[in-house]
Amino acid sequence: MSRFWSPLVSRLSPYVPGEQPKMTNLTKLNTNENPYPPSLKVLKAIRAEVGDNLRLYPDPDSLVLKQAIAAYHGVQVDQVFVGNGSDEVLAFVFQALFKHDAPLLFPDVTYSFYPVYCGLYEIDYQTVPLADDFSIKINDYLRPNGGIIFPNPNAPTGRLLALAEIERLLQANLDSVVVVDEAYIDFGGETAISLVNSYPNLLVTHSLSKSRALAGLRVGFAVGHPDLIEALTRVKDSFNSYPLDRLAQAGAVAAFADESYFQKTRHAVMDSREALVQSMRALGFEVIPSAANFIFARHPAHDAAALAAGLREFGVIVRHFNKPRIEQYLRITIGTPQQNNTLLEALNKVLPA
Amino acid sequence: MSRFWSPLVSRLSPYVPGEQPKMTNLTKLNTNENPYPPSLKVLKAIRAEVGDNLRLYPDPDSLVLKQAIAAYHGVQVDQVFVGNGSDEVLAFVFQALFKHDAPLLFPDVTYSFYPVYCGLYEIDYQTVPLADDFSIKINDYLRPNGGIIFPNPNAPTGRLLALAEIERLLQANLDSVVVVDEAYIDFGGETAISLVNSYPNLLVTHSLSKSRALAGLRVGFAVGHPDLIEALTRVKDSFNSYPLDRLAQAGAVAAFADESYFQKTRHAVMDSREALVQSMRALGFEVIPSAANFIFARHPAHDAAALAAGLREFGVIVRHFNKPRIEQYLRITIGTPQQNNTLLEALNKVLPA
Repeated sequence: MSRFWSPLVSRLSPYVPGEQPKMTNLTKLNTNENPYPPSLKVLKAIRAEVGDNLRLYPDPDSLVLKQAIAAYHGVQVDQVFVGNGSDEVLAFVFQALFKHDAPLLFPDVTYSFYPVYCGLYEIDYQTVPLADDFSIKINDYLRPNGGIIFPNPNAPTGRLLALAEIERLLQANLDSVVVVDEAYIDFGGETAISLVNSYPNLLVTHSLSKSRALAGLRVGFAVGHPDLIEALTRVKDSFNSYPLDRLAQAGAVAAFADESYFQKTRHAVMDSREALVQSMRALGFEVIPSAANFIFARHPAHDAAALAAGLREFGVIVRHFNKPRIEQYLRITIGTPQQNNTLLEALNKVLPA
Repeated sequence: MSRFWSPLVSRLSPYVPGEQPKMTNLTKLNTNENPYPPSLKVLKAIRAEVGDNLRLYPDPDSLVLKQAIAAYHGVQVDQVFVGNGSDEVLAFVFQALFKHDAPLLFPDVTYSFYPVYCGLYEIDYQTVPLADDFSIKINDYLRPNGGIIFPNPNAPTGRLLALAEIERLLQANLDSVVVVDEAYIDFGGETAISLVNSYPNLLVTHSLSKSRALAGLRVGFAVGHPDLIEALTRVKDSFNSYPLDRLAQAGAVAAFADESYFQKTRHAVMDSREALVQSMRALGFEVIPSAANFIFARHPAHDAAALAAGLREFGVIVRHFNKPRIEQYLRITIGTPQQNNTLLEALNKVLPA
């Protein structure tokens, strides 16, 4: 550390994202990207925006994009916030809505960026253990808190919490904000956005990185009561006036206008997932039921870290978290049927060893 | 406000960016954009990146871009930090380097985002009055502080501080960080990047929005000692793993590879500025000497707010800040010679009124 640093800096434990290998010809199943490309309409819209107007600042309010999201999800524009990826949206959520006297609550096994944000904004938090089957039990969250956040489906488990359970939590927790992080909701869940008009304490966050195949473009959003959106906007406007560039705004708008491609690709991923789960179980893996574009699996007879290393030898990259409760699991992104076959062939070579 | 807000949120005074009007056919001289388009090589590089790979996350470290910046400015890669516009870079600077017991110092007339960042990160600050001619006097900064920041040339005055004066400040202020915000340096100043190897307390920030004509792409960077860069990186990696999308990284790399276009356009802007200053003075304006792509001017006989409103009637938008000491000034972006003529014609109509 350095005497020039703000004292906070040396206390941070930054997030470590999944590897983005420079090598091509790998089967990359480690960061939950969509195996299918973005919609051609998105690429066309971005290309149309590549021109002289890049000399001009983008719309700081991303109004056209907010309108597209509002129309798609049946809410008002002032119920929508957009950011430079859902990670930026979540950062603003933590700073704007979660700093209270009572601790923030989130699962012990969940998106590992949450405790990092707490470090960045010096937010007190408590983790709530998942049940033995890795499910979230709402009753465990019914205690004083300064906010609650969890992904649905949860990451890295893939397990879905039923919408009725979320509504039960909202009803029992009217005095603090509940954030449902729906980065993976389009692969088998039902969005809680349908509840935002009934619960002013609900905020739902989404990403275009997964189901819209736009991880490389960096767009995420949140939907909730205008008061919650205003808090995010005030923080955003105190941080960076223009977080979304012109190309990201144009591409994201187009993504919401190609419903048939969206439906086709998300169903293709779900179909691949079900096929992969069957094959993995046939190989002896225990697979957590998944509503996401990844599965979370362990083999009773093989060490997960050794399996991940073995797969890498065959050019297949999956994610392994060396963390309590999950160190014997692998998180494997759903690929195309071909990529999944490559994975299974590699597993067949690695497992007998 | 709302009981769901973190207490900080209601205390924020967000930054208000210059208007981005939806109307076309305006002469837009209000947000210091470059009047010339980006390099064709930049547009080509972006177009080449618009494809299936947008489904994949970008390089979280923007390594190729850092290498391009390091090579261009003759520093090492670990002396470079990149962000989603220089406003994001500055936000990280405030959080990572300026939160100390002693107050941060910056000029009383300067980039109005600085006090906003202080509000966001609860940083104590003191403003240091500019001299009557709006110049920065280094001797006024030689007192206990938790950091010093100023733009060079300053905004919105356009006044340049000589590099020798900056070096004098660095020598006399070894115990805290000095940040020189060089958003406008390419229009007539000499960059302090030449001093980073001699002064570990110096950080220099740049933007691609102005001299590289890429305001719509959102890329900024900082150059300094690796310890300072590490502080920014730790905060960035605790906030958002991937702040720069694939298109921004590709376009920014290409910008540093087209030196002849860069030189041609920045000189065209400087030439236009000198011509405009002469014409404005002929109309009776007092114009602060500018080393930026804007001028700061007042007319002794005409109210600045009225002038700005009058220009708007003729389709010319300039920026007026309703703030102490500068409420009788207009900040006018340098346009093409044609745009400047449109401005002068509009002024000729407005002034006699």
